[in-house]
Amino acid sequence: MKRRLLLVSNSTLHGGGYLDHCQQNISHFFGKDVKKVLFVPYALHDRDAYTKTARDKFTSLGYELNGIHEALDPVSAVRKAEAIFIGGGNTFRLLKSLYDNELVTEIKRRVLEDGVPYMGSSAGTNVATVSINTTNDMPIVYPPSFSAIGLVPFNINPHYLDQDPKSRHMGETREQRITQYHEEPDTPCVLGLREGSMLLVEGNTATLLGTTSARLFTRGKPSLEYDPGSDLSFLLTQ
Amino acid sequence: MKRRLLLVSNSTLHGGGYLDHCQQNISHFFGKDVKKVLFVPYALHDRDAYTKTARDKFTSLGYELNGIHEALDPVSAVRKAEAIFIGGGNTFRLLKSLYDNELVTEIKRRVLEDGVPYMGSSAGTNVATVSINTTNDMPIVYPPSFSAIGLVPFNINPHYLDQDPKSRHMGETREQRITQYHEEPDTPCVLGLREGSMLLVEGNTATLLGTTSARLFTRGKPSLEYDPGSDLSFLLTQ
Repeated sequence: MKRRLLLVSNSTLHGGGYLDHCQQNISHFFGKDVKKVLFVPYALHDRDAYTKTARDKFTSLGYELNGIHEALDPVSAVRKAEAIFIGGGNTFRLLKSLYDNELVTEIKRRVLEDGVPYMGSSAGTNVATVSINTTNDMPIVYPPSFSAIGLVPFNINPHYLDQDPKSRHMGETREQRITQYHEEPDTPCVLGLREGSMLLVEGNTATLLGTTSARLFTRGKPSLEYDPGSDLSFLLTQ
Repeated sequence: MKRRLLLVSNSTLHGGGYLDHCQQNISHFFGKDVKKVLFVPYALHDRDAYTKTARDKFTSLGYELNGIHEALDPVSAVRKAEAIFIGGGNTFRLLKSLYDNELVTEIKRRVLEDGVPYMGSSAGTNVATVSINTTNDMPIVYPPSFSAIGLVPFNINPHYLDQDPKSRHMGETREQRITQYHEEPDTPCVLGLREGSMLLVEGNTATLLGTTSARLFTRGKPSLEYDPGSDLSFLLTQ
């Protein structure tokens, strides 16, 4: 399988600029063969402003970047893309726009069959997985399905957050929410990617990168911690 | 309009027991005419355990309480109900179950036409509004629609949370999430009910009760704060 994915938990780390914390990973991931990246800004309302932010960053790393909303035919833009980056924002808005523009199947085909490298950040990481059932976002629009692009056979919870023992807030913790998901039948593993971490997938190999550990939730089993550098390839064959 | 609603932000306040913080409001709301309350435990996985928790509390307040899942025919149970209480948990699971059991229209009819008093807590408050677009919950199941029972013409964000200026977490604040909702066209007002607050609706009168203030978000306008005791009846005629 030609699959190449860089799935980042968060676009901005506290105290840093946009994608600063993972810029070396981005350069290494896209390498020197990629010249131009197709950017999908659907998760935010102001697509032009978002594309400018992404373009500024990618230009500084030596890549040309174009917003898919600037193309006359988004499906054709995906068919021609050398590399794809889907940015963060609201996951519901993003997935609905991907369906509205008939891009879900096309992106899947390009990445899994043609080996086009795919980078996602936050919401863009959510939509790369089985479904958006484990997003943290507010459901501001109704997508035609929660099924996502399905580039990996598990789900991710980006911005994974540990319980704050000092909090007096009574809303569910992130762990409780994921446990509720696993009360439903036939639900896949959920990898909780803390801010600062990311998953690199090369074919059938998956490696945790970044500066923070990740927590893996499997239905009916205790959750497990993995440090940066861990081999998580077993998640790809479940 | 006969409508009578008690829409509570949260079931449990830090340091207290289940529904302790609003028990006087519950007694005052259901009064002495109501003998038996129909409880909807769909938002949690273990419906029996949840009904026991609610039953213990309501028994202590002098009311009989039956879980709707114990009835052979849930629609018939709603048709016969003297009073309805929908408890908190996962809003997506709750709304999906309400649709699966064909209860959305029936509950609306009973409350708005027959004047059956309706109490909601957290997710049970979300489903009483226009839609669940402003829930905080994880979308663990896919309901057939985000449209909810529609007992009021606005949305509520329960467990409303102010930004923590000390946080290093980069996920969106609650205010940013609601602002993203209002970037979408034709979206109604959102009342952010902090933990400890609740809304009492009697016909065309709405009053903020409890111990915390609430924040009102209106599309295209600055948000506004309201103290407990505020008359929010204007929200019912928008």
